[in-house]
Amino acid sequence: MNRQGILIVVSGFSGSGKGTIMKELLRRYDNYALSVSATTRQPREGEVEGREYFFKTREEFEKMIAKEELIEYARYVNHYYGTPRAYVEEQLAVGKDVILEIELQGALKIRDRFPDALLLFVTPPSAKELKRRLVSRGTETAEVIEQRMRRAVEESEGMESYDYYVVNDVLDTCVEDVHRIICAEHGRSMRNREFAEQIKRELKGE
Amino acid sequence: MNRQGILIVVSGFSGSGKGTIMKELLRRYDNYALSVSATTRQPREGEVEGREYFFKTREEFEKMIAKEELIEYARYVNHYYGTPRAYVEEQLAVGKDVILEIELQGALKIRDRFPDALLLFVTPPSAKELKRRLVSRGTETAEVIEQRMRRAVEESEGMESYDYYVVNDVLDTCVEDVHRIICAEHGRSMRNREFAEQIKRELKGE
Repeated sequence: MNRQGILIVVSGFSGSGKGTIMKELLRRYDNYALSVSATTRQPREGEVEGREYFFKTREEFEKMIAKEELIEYARYVNHYYGTPRAYVEEQLAVGKDVILEIELQGALKIRDRFPDALLLFVTPPSAKELKRRLVSRGTETAEVIEQRMRRAVEESEGMESYDYYVVNDVLDTCVEDVHRIICAEHGRSMRNREFAEQIKRELKGE
Repeated sequence: MNRQGILIVVSGFSGSGKGTIMKELLRRYDNYALSVSATTRQPREGEVEGREYFFKTREEFEKMIAKEELIEYARYVNHYYGTPRAYVEEQLAVGKDVILEIELQGALKIRDRFPDALLLFVTPPSAKELKRRLVSRGTETAEVIEQRMRRAVEESEGMESYDYYVVNDVLDTCVEDVHRIICAEHGRSMRNREFAEQIKRELKGE
Protein backbone atom coordinates (compact mmCIF):
# COMPACT_ATOMS: atom_id res chain seq x y z
CA MET A 1 0.00 0.00 0.00
CA ASN A 2 1.13 3.55 -0.45
CA ARG A 3 2.48 5.49 2.46
CA GLN A 4 1.11 8.96 1.88
CA GLY A 5 1.14 11.31 4.82
CA ILE A 6 -2.06 11.89 6.77
CA LEU A 7 -3.18 15.36 7.82
CA ILE A 8 -4.02 15.07 11.51
CA VAL A 9 -5.90 17.60 13.60
CA VAL A 10 -5.48 17.33 17.35
CA SER A 11 -7.85 19.28 19.57
CA GLY A 12 -8.99 18.73 23.11
CA PHE A 13 -9.87 20.31 26.39
CA SER A 14 -7.51 22.91 27.77
CA GLY A 15 -5.75 20.92 30.46
CA SER A 16 -6.03 17.64 28.55
CA GLY A 17 -2.26 17.64 28.05
CA LYS A 18 -2.37 17.57 24.24
CA GLY A 19 0.77 19.70 23.91
CA THR A 20 2.80 17.22 25.97
CA ILE A 21 1.39 14.28 24.01
CA MET A 22 2.41 15.84 20.69
CA LYS A 23 5.89 16.67 21.94
CA GLU A 24 6.35 13.10 23.14
CA LEU A 25 4.98 11.65 19.89
CA LEU A 26 7.51 13.63 17.87
CA ARG A 27 10.32 12.59 20.18
CA ARG A 28 9.50 8.89 19.86
CA TYR A 29 8.65 8.48 16.18
CA ASP A 30 10.06 10.01 13.04
CA ASN A 31 6.99 9.81 10.82
CA TYR A 32 5.50 12.98 12.28
CA ALA A 33 5.85 16.66 11.47
CA LEU A 34 4.27 19.30 13.66
CA SER A 35 2.79 22.26 11.83
CA VAL A 36 3.71 25.63 13.33
CA SER A 37 0.95 28.24 13.22
CA ALA A 38 1.29 31.85 12.19
CA THR A 39 -0.13 34.49 14.52
CA THR A 40 -0.38 38.23 14.93
CA ARG A 41 -0.24 38.11 18.70
CA GLN A 42 2.92 39.20 20.53
CA PRO A 43 5.50 36.56 21.45
CA ARG A 44 5.41 35.64 25.12
CA GLU A 45 8.45 35.18 27.34
CA GLY A 46 10.47 32.20 26.09
CA GLU A 47 8.59 31.76 22.80
CA VAL A 48 10.82 31.33 19.77
CA GLU A 49 9.99 32.42 16.20
CA GLY A 50 9.28 29.32 14.11
CA ARG A 51 9.01 27.02 17.12
CA GLU A 52 5.87 28.10 19.01
CA TYR A 53 4.62 30.36 16.22
CA PHE A 54 5.60 32.35 13.19
CA PHE A 55 5.02 35.87 14.45
CA LYS A 56 3.51 38.15 11.82
CA THR A 57 2.27 41.70 11.66
CA ARG A 58 -1.36 42.12 10.84
CA GLU A 59 -0.42 43.36 7.40
CA GLU A 60 1.78 40.35 6.71
CA PHE A 61 -0.95 38.00 7.93
CA GLU A 62 -3.62 39.57 5.75
CA LYS A 63 -1.30 39.30 2.78
CA MET A 64 -0.98 35.56 3.50
CA ILE A 65 -4.76 35.27 3.57
CA ALA A 66 -5.07 37.10 0.26
CA LYS A 67 -2.46 34.89 -1.39
CA GLU A 68 -4.14 31.72 -0.02
CA GLU A 69 -1.01 30.79 1.84
CA LEU A 70 -3.00 29.52 4.83
CA ILE A 71 -5.05 26.32 4.81
CA GLU A 72 -7.19 27.66 7.65
CA TYR A 73 -7.20 30.71 9.87
CA ALA A 74 -9.34 32.24 12.56
CA ARG A 75 -9.51 35.25 14.83
CA TYR A 76 -9.50 34.91 18.59
CA VAL A 77 -9.57 37.94 20.87
CA ASN A 78 -8.51 40.33 18.12
CA HIS A 79 -5.59 38.24 16.89
CA TYR A 80 -5.20 36.06 13.84
CA TYR A 81 -4.04 32.47 14.02
CA GLY A 82 -3.52 30.32 10.94
CA THR A 83 -1.83 27.29 9.40
CA PRO A 84 0.71 28.03 6.64
CA ARG A 85 0.04 25.85 3.62
CA ALA A 86 3.57 25.36 2.25
CA TYR A 87 5.02 23.40 5.16
CA VAL A 88 1.97 21.13 5.46
CA GLU A 89 1.97 20.27 1.76
CA GLU A 90 5.74 19.71 1.64
CA GLN A 91 5.66 17.33 4.58
CA LEU A 92 2.63 15.37 3.36
CA ALA A 93 4.32 14.99 -0.01
CA VAL A 94 7.37 13.30 1.53
CA GLY A 95 5.09 10.92 3.44
CA LYS A 96 5.09 12.59 6.86
CA ASP A 97 1.97 12.56 9.01
CA VAL A 98 1.43 16.24 9.70
CA ILE A 99 -0.10 17.27 13.01
CA LEU A 100 -2.06 20.49 13.47
CA GLU A 101 -2.85 21.39 17.04
CA ILE A 102 -5.87 23.63 16.50
CA GLU A 103 -9.31 24.26 17.91
CA LEU A 104 -12.76 23.17 16.82
CA GLN A 105 -13.36 26.08 14.45
CA GLY A 106 -10.15 25.34 12.53
CA ALA A 107 -10.69 21.59 12.73
CA LEU A 108 -14.02 21.90 10.95
CA LYS A 109 -12.47 24.01 8.20
CA ILE A 110 -9.76 21.39 7.70
CA ARG A 111 -12.36 18.62 7.51
CA ASP A 112 -14.19 20.62 4.86
CA ARG A 113 -11.14 21.19 2.70
CA PHE A 114 -9.36 17.91 3.35
CA PRO A 115 -12.01 15.19 3.68
CA ASP A 116 -9.31 12.59 4.40
CA ALA A 117 -7.96 14.52 7.39
CA LEU A 118 -8.00 12.65 10.68
CA LEU A 119 -9.53 14.48 13.65
CA LEU A 120 -8.50 13.47 17.18
CA PHE A 121 -9.95 14.85 20.38
CA VAL A 122 -7.93 14.51 23.59
CA THR A 123 -9.84 14.27 26.83
CA PRO A 124 -9.20 13.39 30.47
CA PRO A 125 -10.97 10.16 31.51
CA SER A 126 -13.95 12.05 32.95
CA ALA A 127 -15.43 15.50 33.51
CA LYS A 128 -14.64 15.11 37.19
CA GLU A 129 -10.95 14.62 36.42
CA LEU A 130 -11.01 17.57 33.98
CA LYS A 131 -12.45 19.79 36.71
CA ARG A 132 -9.83 18.56 39.14
CA ARG A 133 -7.05 19.45 36.68
CA LEU A 134 -8.49 22.87 35.90
CA VAL A 135 -8.85 23.69 39.58
CA SER A 136 -5.50 22.35 40.75
CA ARG A 137 -3.43 23.98 38.04
CA GLY A 138 -2.28 26.78 40.29
CA THR A 139 -3.57 29.36 42.66
CA GLU A 140 -6.24 30.80 40.40
CA THR A 141 -9.23 32.70 41.65
CA ALA A 142 -12.71 31.21 41.61
CA GLU A 143 -13.46 33.51 38.70
CA VAL A 144 -10.63 32.14 36.54
CA ILE A 145 -11.70 28.58 37.32
CA GLU A 146 -15.30 29.41 36.45
CA GLN A 147 -14.12 30.90 33.14
CA ARG A 148 -12.16 27.71 32.36
CA MET A 149 -15.18 25.56 33.11
CA ARG A 150 -17.30 27.60 30.70
CA ARG A 151 -14.57 27.20 28.09
CA ALA A 152 -14.58 23.41 28.67
CA VAL A 153 -18.34 23.31 28.09
CA GLU A 154 -17.79 25.12 24.77
CA GLU A 155 -14.95 22.79 23.78
CA SER A 156 -17.10 19.75 24.52
CA GLU A 157 -19.84 20.90 22.12
CA GLY A 158 -17.83 19.86 19.06
CA MET A 159 -16.73 16.44 20.29
CA GLU A 160 -18.92 14.54 17.81
CA SER A 161 -17.14 16.13 14.88
CA TYR A 162 -13.94 14.25 15.68
CA ASP A 163 -13.07 10.77 14.46
CA TYR A 164 -11.51 9.46 17.64
CA TYR A 165 -11.42 10.25 21.33
CA VAL A 166 -8.08 9.81 23.01
CA VAL A 167 -8.19 9.51 26.77
CA ASN A 168 -5.20 11.03 28.50
CA ASP A 169 -4.98 9.22 31.78
CA VAL A 170 -1.41 7.89 31.77
CA LEU A 171 0.76 9.92 29.36
CA ASP A 172 2.78 7.00 28.04
CA THR A 173 -0.31 4.92 27.23
CA CYS A 174 -1.95 7.90 25.61
CA VAL A 175 1.00 8.63 23.32
CA GLU A 176 0.99 5.00 22.20
CA ASP A 177 -2.78 5.12 21.65
CA VAL A 178 -2.41 8.14 19.37
CA HIS A 179 0.41 6.48 17.44
CA ARG A 180 -1.61 3.28 17.08
CA ILE A 181 -4.63 5.12 15.74
CA ILE A 182 -2.55 6.90 13.13
CA CYS A 183 -0.70 3.75 12.04
CA ALA A 184 -3.98 1.87 11.76
CA GLU A 185 -5.53 4.70 9.70
CA HIS A 186 -2.89 4.22 7.01
CA GLY A 187 -4.67 0.97 6.16
CA ARG A 188 -8.09 2.59 5.58
CA SER A 189 -9.53 1.67 2.23
CA MET A 190 -10.32 5.33 1.43
CA ARG A 191 -6.60 6.11 1.79
CA ASN A 192 -5.64 3.25 -0.53
CA ARG A 193 -7.96 3.53 -3.48
CA GLU A 194 -5.09 3.42 -5.93
CA PHE A 195 -3.79 0.21 -4.33
CA ALA A 196 -7.19 -1.47 -4.77
CA GLU A 197 -7.52 -0.25 -8.35
CA GLN A 198 -4.09 -1.57 -9.21
CA ILE A 199 -4.84 -5.03 -7.79
CA LYS A 200 -8.07 -5.14 -9.80
CA ARG A 201 -6.32 -4.10 -13.01
CA GLU A 202 -3.56 -6.65 -12.53
CA LEU A 203 -5.98 -9.46 -11.73
CA LYS A 204 -7.91 -8.76 -14.90
CA GLY A 205 -4.61 -8.91 -16.74
CA GLU A 206 -4.88 -5.33 -17.96
CA MET B 1 -14.59 5.04 27.61
CA ASN B 2 -16.77 1.99 27.39
CA ARG B 3 -15.38 -1.28 26.20
CA GLN B 4 -18.19 -2.72 24.16
CA GLY B 5 -17.31 -5.47 21.76
CA ILE B 6 -16.94 -4.71 18.06
CA LEU B 7 -18.47 -6.90 15.38
CA ILE B 8 -15.67 -7.56 12.89
CA VAL B 9 -16.04 -9.02 9.43
CA VAL B 10 -12.91 -10.45 7.87
CA SER B 11 -12.93 -11.25 4.18
CA GLY B 12 -10.18 -11.47 1.63
CA PHE B 13 -8.84 -13.29 -1.36
CA SER B 14 -8.74 -17.07 -1.20
CA GLY B 15 -5.08 -17.68 -0.55
CA SER B 16 -4.66 -14.45 1.45
CA GLY B 17 -4.13 -16.51 4.60
CA LYS B 18 -7.01 -15.00 6.53
CA GLY B 19 -7.78 -18.25 8.33
CA THR B 20 -4.24 -18.46 9.70
CA ILE B 21 -4.33 -14.79 10.75
CA MET B 22 -7.55 -15.29 12.70
CA LYS B 23 -6.24 -18.41 14.41
CA GLU B 24 -3.08 -16.57 15.44
CA LEU B 25 -5.04 -13.53 16.62
CA LEU B 26 -7.16 -15.72 18.91
CA ARG B 27 -4.09 -17.49 20.23
CA ARG B 28 -2.32 -14.23 21.12
CA TYR B 29 -5.10 -12.08 22.55
CA ASP B 30 -8.06 -12.86 24.74
CA ASN B 31 -10.40 -10.07 23.64
CA TYR B 32 -11.53 -11.99 20.55
CA ALA B 33 -14.25 -14.53 19.92
CA LEU B 34 -14.55 -16.30 16.58
CA SER B 35 -18.05 -16.85 15.33
CA VAL B 36 -18.70 -20.36 14.01
CA SER B 37 -21.00 -20.56 11.00
CA ALA B 38 -23.84 -22.97 10.48
CA THR B 39 -23.97 -24.87 7.20
CA THR B 40 -25.95 -27.57 5.43
CA ARG B 41 -22.94 -28.96 3.60
CA GLN B 42 -21.42 -32.27 4.67
CA PRO B 43 -18.50 -32.24 7.13
CA ARG B 44 -15.16 -32.89 5.46
CA GLU B 45 -12.45 -35.17 6.82
CA GLY B 46 -11.17 -33.76 10.10
CA GLU B 47 -13.88 -31.11 10.56
CA VAL B 48 -15.39 -31.03 14.02
CA GLU B 49 -18.98 -30.02 14.87
CA GLY B 50 -18.92 -26.60 16.55
CA ARG B 51 -15.31 -25.89 15.59
CA GLU B 52 -15.26 -25.49 11.79
CA TYR B 53 -19.06 -25.36 11.47
CA PHE B 54 -22.31 -26.24 13.10
CA PHE B 55 -23.59 -28.87 10.69
CA LYS B 56 -27.32 -28.66 10.10
CA THR B 57 -29.85 -30.42 7.93
CA ARG B 58 -31.62 -28.27 5.41
CA GLU B 59 -34.76 -28.46 7.50
CA GLU B 60 -32.96 -27.32 10.64
CA PHE B 61 -31.31 -24.49 8.78
CA GLU B 62 -34.56 -23.24 7.30
CA LYS B 63 -36.12 -23.32 10.73
CA MET B 64 -33.25 -21.10 11.97
CA ILE B 65 -33.95 -18.66 9.13
CA ALA B 66 -37.64 -18.58 9.97
CA LYS B 67 -36.96 -17.93 13.66
CA GLU B 68 -34.43 -15.17 12.80
CA GLU B 69 -31.70 -17.06 14.55
CA LEU B 70 -29.14 -16.06 11.91
CA ILE B 71 -27.76 -12.54 11.52
CA GLU B 72 -26.90 -13.27 7.90
CA TYR B 73 -27.02 -16.27 5.61
CA ALA B 74 -26.37 -17.08 1.99
CA ARG B 75 -26.46 -19.98 -0.44
CA TYR B 76 -23.37 -21.13 -2.29
CA VAL B 77 -23.44 -24.10 -4.64
CA ASN B 78 -26.73 -25.41 -3.26
CA HIS B 79 -25.70 -25.20 0.39
CA TYR B 80 -26.65 -22.75 3.09
CA TYR B 81 -24.09 -20.92 5.20
CA GLY B 82 -25.05 -18.55 7.99
CA THR B 83 -24.02 -16.82 11.22
CA PRO B 84 -25.95 -17.85 14.35
CA ARG B 85 -27.15 -14.80 16.23
CA ALA B 86 -27.06 -16.02 19.85
CA TYR B 87 -23.29 -16.55 20.14
CA VAL B 88 -22.46 -13.23 18.47
CA GLU B 89 -24.78 -11.26 20.74
CA GLU B 90 -23.63 -13.05 23.89
CA GLN B 91 -19.97 -12.39 23.15
CA LEU B 92 -20.48 -8.72 22.19
CA ALA B 93 -22.43 -8.21 25.41
CA VAL B 94 -19.51 -9.38 27.54
CA GLY B 95 -17.17 -7.04 25.65
CA LYS B 96 -15.56 -9.49 23.24
CA ASP B 97 -14.65 -8.40 19.72
CA VAL B 98 -16.43 -10.97 17.60
CA ILE B 99 -14.89 -12.01 14.31
CA LEU B 100 -16.93 -13.32 11.40
CA GLU B 101 -14.93 -14.81 8.56
CA ILE B 102 -17.41 -14.42 5.73
CA GLU B 103 -17.54 -13.34 2.10
CA LEU B 104 -18.58 -10.10 0.43
CA GLN B 105 -22.26 -10.97 0.15
CA GLY B 106 -22.50 -11.65 3.90
CA ALA B 107 -20.24 -8.71 4.74
CA LEU B 108 -22.61 -6.29 3.03
CA LYS B 109 -25.60 -7.73 4.89
CA ILE B 110 -23.75 -7.28 8.19
CA ARG B 111 -22.89 -3.68 7.30
CA ASP B 112 -26.55 -3.03 6.58
CA ARG B 113 -27.82 -4.47 9.84
CA PHE B 114 -24.92 -3.42 12.07
CA PRO B 115 -23.69 -0.03 10.86
CA ASP B 116 -20.93 -0.05 13.50
CA ALA B 117 -19.47 -3.32 12.26
CA LEU B 118 -15.84 -3.15 11.16
CA LEU B 119 -15.03 -4.65 7.76
CA LEU B 120 -11.48 -5.84 7.06
CA PHE B 121 -10.20 -7.14 3.74
CA VAL B 122 -7.06 -9.27 3.73
CA THR B 123 -4.89 -9.16 0.64
CA PRO B 124 -1.43 -10.23 -0.47
CA PRO B 125 0.86 -7.26 -1.19
CA SER B 126 0.12 -7.39 -4.94
CA ALA B 127 -1.86 -9.18 -7.60
CA LYS B 128 1.38 -10.74 -8.80
CA GLU B 129 1.96 -12.29 -5.39
CA LEU B 130 -1.66 -13.45 -5.22
CA LYS B 131 -1.26 -15.21 -8.58
CA ARG B 132 1.97 -16.79 -7.39
CA ARG B 133 0.22 -18.16 -4.30
CA LEU B 134 -2.76 -19.46 -6.24
CA VAL B 135 -0.52 -21.20 -8.75
CA SER B 136 1.97 -22.66 -6.31
CA ARG B 137 -0.57 -24.08 -3.88
CA GLY B 138 -0.29 -27.59 -5.22
CA THR B 139 -0.28 -29.55 -8.40
CA GLU B 140 -3.51 -28.16 -9.78
CA THR B 141 -4.44 -28.17 -13.43
CA ALA B 142 -4.40 -25.02 -15.52
CA GLU B 143 -8.19 -25.14 -15.41
CA VAL B 144 -8.33 -25.04 -11.60
CA ILE B 145 -5.86 -22.15 -11.54
CA GLU B 146 -7.88 -20.29 -14.15
CA GLN B 147 -11.01 -20.81 -12.03
CA ARG B 148 -9.25 -19.42 -8.96
CA MET B 149 -8.11 -16.37 -10.88
CA ARG B 150 -11.68 -15.67 -11.98
CA ARG B 151 -12.78 -16.05 -8.35
CA ALA B 152 -10.09 -13.55 -7.29
CA VAL B 153 -11.37 -11.02 -9.83
CA GLU B 154 -14.86 -11.42 -8.34
CA GLU B 155 -13.53 -11.08 -4.79
CA SER B 156 -11.67 -7.89 -5.72
CA GLU B 157 -14.86 -6.21 -6.95
CA GLY B 158 -16.10 -5.56 -3.44
CA MET B 159 -12.85 -4.21 -1.97
CA GLU B 160 -14.16 -0.63 -1.64
CA SER B 161 -16.92 -1.77 0.67
CA TYR B 162 -14.42 -2.62 3.38
CA ASP B 163 -13.07 -0.19 5.97
CA TYR B 164 -9.47 -1.35 5.97
CA TYR B 165 -7.09 -3.32 3.80
CA VAL B 166 -4.73 -5.60 5.64
CA VAL B 167 -1.70 -6.70 3.68
CA ASN B 168 -0.57 -10.21 4.52
CA ASP B 169 3.09 -10.26 3.60
CA VAL B 170 4.73 -11.41 6.84
CA LEU B 171 2.21 -13.28 9.03
CA ASP B 172 3.44 -11.89 12.34
CA THR B 173 3.29 -8.27 11.17
CA CYS B 174 -0.11 -8.83 9.65
CA VAL B 175 -1.58 -10.27 12.87
CA GLU B 176 -0.28 -7.25 14.79
CA ASP B 177 -1.70 -4.90 12.14
CA VAL B 178 -5.14 -6.43 12.52
CA HIS B 179 -4.95 -6.22 16.30
CA ARG B 180 -3.81 -2.59 16.12
CA ILE B 181 -6.67 -1.61 13.82
CA ILE B 182 -9.23 -3.18 16.15
CA CYS B 183 -7.73 -1.62 19.29
CA ALA B 184 -7.64 1.78 17.61
CA GLU B 185 -11.26 1.43 16.48
CA HIS B 186 -12.39 1.18 20.10
CA GLY B 187 -11.55 4.90 20.37
CA ARG B 188 -13.80 5.97 17.47
CA SER B 189 -16.18 8.70 18.46
CA MET B 190 -19.16 6.85 16.94
CA ARG B 191 -18.45 3.94 19.32
CA ASN B 192 -18.29 6.28 22.32
CA ARG B 193 -21.30 8.55 22.01
CA GLU B 194 -22.40 7.81 25.55
CA PHE B 195 -18.95 8.75 26.88
CA ALA B 196 -19.11 12.14 25.11
CA GLU B 197 -22.67 12.76 26.30
CA GLN B 198 -21.70 11.99 29.85
CA ILE B 199 -18.75 14.39 29.81
CA LYS B 200 -21.01 17.12 28.44
CA ARG B 201 -23.66 16.50 31.08
CA GLU B 202 -21.13 16.52 33.88
CA LEU B 203 -19.44 19.69 32.64
CA LYS B 204 -22.75 21.47 32.59
CA GLY B 205 -23.27 20.29 36.14
CA GLU B 206 -26.40 18.32 35.26
